[in-house]
Amino acid sequence: MIVETLAVGTELLLGQIVNSNAAEIGSRLADAGLDHYHQAVVGDNLARITAAITAATTRADALIITGGIGPTRDDITREAIAAAAGVPLEFSDDYADHLRRWWGERGRQMPETNLRQARYPAGAELIANPKGTAPGLRMRVGGCRVFAVPGVPAEMLPMVDEDIIPTLLAEHDATGVMVSRVLRTWGESESRVDEMLSDLFLGSANPTVAYLASAAEIKVRLTARAADRAGALALITPVEEEVRRRLGARVFGADDRTVERILLEQLGERGWSIGTAESATGGMVAAAITAVAGASAAFVGSVVAYHRAVKEAALGVPAGLIDTNGIVSEPVALAMCQGAATVLGADVVVATTGAAGPEPHGAAVGTMVIAVRTPEDARARTLMMPGDRERVRTYTVTAALHHVRLALSGEWWV
Amino acid sequence: MIVETLAVGTELLLGQIVNSNAAEIGSRLADAGLDHYHQAVVGDNLARITAAITAATTRADALIITGGIGPTRDDITREAIAAAAGVPLEFSDDYADHLRRWWGERGRQMPETNLRQARYPAGAELIANPKGTAPGLRMRVGGCRVFAVPGVPAEMLPMVDEDIIPTLLAEHDATGVMVSRVLRTWGESESRVDEMLSDLFLGSANPTVAYLASAAEIKVRLTARAADRAGALALITPVEEEVRRRLGARVFGADDRTVERILLEQLGERGWSIGTAESATGGMVAAAITAVAGASAAFVGSVVAYHRAVKEAALGVPAGLIDTNGIVSEPVALAMCQGAATVLGADVVVATTGAAGPEPHGAAVGTMVIAVRTPEDARARTLMMPGDRERVRTYTVTAALHHVRLALSGEWWV
Repeated sequence: MIVETLAVGTELLLGQIVNSNAAEIGSRLADAGLDHYHQAVVGDNLARITAAITAATTRADALIITGGIGPTRDDITREAIAAAAGVPLEFSDDYADHLRRWWGERGRQMPETNLRQARYPAGAELIANPKGTAPGLRMRVGGCRVFAVPGVPAEMLPMVDEDIIPTLLAEHDATGVMVSRVLRTWGESESRVDEMLSDLFLGSANPTVAYLASAAEIKVRLTARAADRAGALALITPVEEEVRRRLGARVFGADDRTVERILLEQLGERGWSIGTAESATGGMVAAAITAVAGASAAFVGSVVAYHRAVKEAALGVPAGLIDTNGIVSEPVALAMCQGAATVLGADVVVATTGAAGPEPHGAAVGTMVIAVRTPEDARARTLMMPGDRERVRTYTVTAALHHVRLALSGEWWV
Repeated sequence: MIVETLAVGTELLLGQIVNSNAAEIGSRLADAGLDHYHQAVVGDNLARITAAITAATTRADALIITGGIGPTRDDITREAIAAAAGVPLEFSDDYADHLRRWWGERGRQMPETNLRQARYPAGAELIANPKGTAPGLRMRVGGCRVFAVPGVPAEMLPMVDEDIIPTLLAEHDATGVMVSRVLRTWGESESRVDEMLSDLFLGSANPTVAYLASAAEIKVRLTARAADRAGALALITPVEEEVRRRLGARVFGADDRTVERILLEQLGERGWSIGTAESATGGMVAAAITAVAGASAAFVGSVVAYHRAVKEAALGVPAGLIDTNGIVSEPVALAMCQGAATVLGADVVVATTGAAGPEPHGAAVGTMVIAVRTPEDARARTLMMPGDRERVRTYTVTAALHHVRLALSGEWWV
């Protein structure tokens, strides 16, 4: 089955935002084993949206449109689909009631312009939006399945995952299934992981392999197609075993077991609580841990000690230790751990101190010290992070979480 | 002059990388006042690249192609341009010599496959690549100017800036410019903002208006086209004044002045430092402030008091106050501010406590209390945030930053 994507929004053409939706949908189509041959972007212009829909529906079996279905006057994807299909727009009284209830439950008066969202091309079905008010659309234009979803990623992705991909897979091959296994790795670059594995996939298309990099974690995705789930797993399992053998401890988890979830499990098993003592990461490590629902079972709190005075007063880092070793140093990071363990009453503490840039605060830009303290041991490590301020901070958060994971599993670094 | 862009690369369709090149080129075309109506992405497939080039050259005055001109066998953009133009490929002995010299100067033997880069469609001119070995291409296909540049941003951007944009502007008879002004608002929904403004833009296309929503902030973008920048601003200014008059204090900044930057400026003017005391947001407010380079001029640190025991021990919130009012309450948020001001030595503190979900921790999911303390006053406010855990937390961060901004500008809520 050939799928195309079309993003609607002048802000994309002006370069004010990047079309990350196309990549998100593309990776999901690849996961599902669906061919994705063409992406397009057009602005909020009825003639050009309509022409793009018409071109895609003559080439592809399915088209996923993102954007242009919000409540405002420049949201005209509904009108363009109707024009491409040659049908009028209709109005859903049920959805209008739903919209009025949604606003009413929030104690607010609904602006009348929101009723645009209750309009739909004749023949379309609405796709429920659990995260917002704009419904998705699903209909046929000629022989092509056309879907329209919001441009906001948090609203778009659940519709793609829970409605569109299952619908396409059901039509694609009613008897077969596609199963993916994602192995999460940390500690090597994407090209090095590829180099270690690529011969496994030469001349074999089932399972396929794909690599996805996100903030220093490389995901290796194995995807197999078979008549049923057991058959697909039988194809994946021997390859997965070989991948795990080659990558060794670099594989830290599979599928949706993120490093945050794993370390919260590790803490639960030991009955230990955790806190953070952050300088350069400014609260990001704490924010990452508390993003997991249920984090409060182990996470107690954090001291963000950005200024030297806070490191001394709130965490009790001795002034002499800072003067002797520098603010970006392993002894200071270890003292931050110790101080936070006392202040927060935490069994485990991870500390960060470093120079995220653009100014070198006591060390070359990119220098990051991570320290972990558990009731059993405490160690620090100095790393050099590449890139700009945002990237240095993001990579440091990932590294901090992985150093806690290593410490909790007894694999302390030297 | 109408320009289109086409990116070539299967990795884009698979979602392994994001098409940030299109946004980079798009913003440069907008700056130059050139219309950018259509972007496309196709994989490394000769028929589909050729079809995309043919479609673009029948619609547009110019086409910029990124990617597919490297040395390997899957780099076939040269072949596709030749096919679309109906011309053969020729070979540049001069460029082959240049390639051999380039490798020789680096003391390395050139892999023979690199000679692919000396091939070009008959009639094309080569564009020098100061950062790499793949030359760009420039030729006419029908009435359309076609440019091909590498997909690597560091090689692509100099060619776009120094060759392609100047070439297009020289051919563009009316060398106009496009100027955008972004007004940042907080406090109303996107549909309500549209309702307040939409009549201003009925029947007028210069300036145009667009709305962009991100985490409870709505941006209103006005874009005007004119012969020069002064002319475009003359079109924008009266409309901007009317938009500001209607939206009043909801407009908090323009262009790249984010709420974080504004409040850091406000703090600088008063000579005040800031810290945070966070429960439900788990360090996200501190992370947002410290994402700004130079935040250390005002930001001193944070106490993330996730557990009740940390609120009591590290922030000195009296146990009786929590028992009487509940952990999610305005008195507790105000006491968190007071405690953090002492512990961190901060003049201004913003505190958050609430129930982000999925479990109701002492309050209905979505209940969020924000408190701000300055040396002049301290107030709290209780809000209901819609959506899931991630959205509740993100919206609370935005709300917390805006409440600090309001407090610092003396616009305390009641």
